[in-house]
Amino acid sequence: MNFADRLQAAVERCGNPVLVGLDPRWQSLPAKIAARAAAGSGADRAAACEAFCRVVIDVVAPLVPAVKPQAAFFEQLGPEGMAALGRVIQYAAERGLLVIFDGKRNDIGSTAAAYAEGILGSAGRSPWGADALTVSPYLGDDSLRPFVDVAAQREAGVFVLVKTSNPGGAMFQDLQVAGRPLYRIVADHVENLAKASLGQCGYGSVGAVVGATWPEQLAGLRRAMPHAWFLVPGFGSQGGTASDVAAAFDQRGLGAIVNNSRGILFAYQRAPYAGRYGEARWEDAVAAATREMIDLLAANTPAGGLGSR
Amino acid sequence: MNFADRLQAAVERCGNPVLVGLDPRWQSLPAKIAARAAAGSGADRAAACEAFCRVVIDVVAPLVPAVKPQAAFFEQLGPEGMAALGRVIQYAAERGLLVIFDGKRNDIGSTAAAYAEGILGSAGRSPWGADALTVSPYLGDDSLRPFVDVAAQREAGVFVLVKTSNPGGAMFQDLQVAGRPLYRIVADHVENLAKASLGQCGYGSVGAVVGATWPEQLAGLRRAMPHAWFLVPGFGSQGGTASDVAAAFDQRGLGAIVNNSRGILFAYQRAPYAGRYGEARWEDAVAAATREMIDLLAANTPAGGLGSR
Repeated sequence: MNFADRLQAAVERCGNPVLVGLDPRWQSLPAKIAARAAAGSGADRAAACEAFCRVVIDVVAPLVPAVKPQAAFFEQLGPEGMAALGRVIQYAAERGLLVIFDGKRNDIGSTAAAYAEGILGSAGRSPWGADALTVSPYLGDDSLRPFVDVAAQREAGVFVLVKTSNPGGAMFQDLQVAGRPLYRIVADHVENLAKASLGQCGYGSVGAVVGATWPEQLAGLRRAMPHAWFLVPGFGSQGGTASDVAAAFDQRGLGAIVNNSRGILFAYQRAPYAGRYGEARWEDAVAAATREMIDLLAANTPAGGLGSR
Repeated sequence: MNFADRLQAAVERCGNPVLVGLDPRWQSLPAKIAARAAAGSGADRAAACEAFCRVVIDVVAPLVPAVKPQAAFFEQLGPEGMAALGRVIQYAAERGLLVIFDGKRNDIGSTAAAYAEGILGSAGRSPWGADALTVSPYLGDDSLRPFVDVAAQREAGVFVLVKTSNPGGAMFQDLQVAGRPLYRIVADHVENLAKASLGQCGYGSVGAVVGATWPEQLAGLRRAMPHAWFLVPGFGSQGGTASDVAAAFDQRGLGAIVNNSRGILFAYQRAPYAGRYGEARWEDAVAAATREMIDLLAANTPAGGLGSR
């Protein structure tokens, strides 16, 4: 089954396109988990981050279609952090979640193939076993090809950075090339890769990362890449709203998954959840913030949103 | 001591600018080591790759200033591979080599900071403890900043992808922006970062990745980034020659380190080393190929090369 169809099935089953970002910033962990991290060794921190992610997965698995572990917050902790990442991916898959490895990896051909072979895979077929990953386009088509090929073999997905959510993303991505911004040239290539990897649902197994913080460009990119699933970061803490991301969806309410990391994981630190639950009930804040995001997207998604089905 | 000065000291001590790339492709390991990898589990493969890298380090540590482990070939093996990478970095540092973590990492600001905090560090100050890393520029200046800042604090270095060695690198990197290729715009930014991080040697702690496979562009980039150390991949197996990389050096024979991975690691597979040493004496082939590259660069480097001092 094509990854595009697997993703559609997961979104339709849950009735929402929410992607929960697993960014276990060890300095921000709730006190009862952080006590372990504060002990100081890399192994202790990794164990705390893993414990935190497992609870988050338990809370969100009945609610959302997918999670996106951010490799940086595991790699930051050294080899023990990466071992924890492996276990987190496995646990999320066991709980029925699609797992998108957010590593923004890439390299020249044969090295890109090593990343793809390692990271992408269904059960037992790769040491990491993620369902999809994020990749950077700067190295060009021959660097993307191994990811696309391995993804096709394994019913996995690839999301290529097109227009990132950070303010500085514009520095190179918005440079004008023959009257069009660079990110539109990248988008054209992604659309070709998506069209060449179509599933039954009308989308391909190659998608695009397009930030919620650029709503106007997002709408243009939806038109430019009608066959690409969008992975939309930047919702919540980075400023993107449900109306900002509305243009990412097609008329069926499909075609995009919207990520939220800090706004869900650390919801206990912000209003109204800080007052309602506080740190002691941080898991309840995770659940409430996830449900709030589902409702916000449903109210702002074309055709009333999948959430209203 | 600024990373640029640390690198210069290492190059001058060894009398050559050779960077040995540690790409332990497990399928290509010599038979006596591969027997272990063939057993099949990720842990066995990781152990074989680690054993291979340790021997390579033993052979090249007396000869060259630095090694560049390619993260992909360790990450490919899963968490055990990353644990092996951690031990390989530590071992190389113990043997007096500078270690450049080739991960082409990057992400938005606070996530980029997690990568930088984790990967860069001197002894005991980071879980990976590399002296420098490679990063991708597509996410712009605010994504590069955390790497530059952490590098400054830790006397570490950053190499930004500017013009990569693969043929497809031209796809986006050579797009014309107001009459100049994109990679030249990236180069201008790298030069600014290099100038803002100068050591005693006249170079900064921020450098550039510029492929040996584009000799003409390499010469132009040397002029465009007079304060940036170049990390030059693409020598040997990818087709770059000693005369192709000559323009990367300043008149003192400094300012660039030239990487060779397969051409050194798997020298036992190619002429003349296959006949001379064969697989049984693959370590001798590593030593001979390293010495050959040192001599080739010395014969083609400005001022006769550091090798002739």
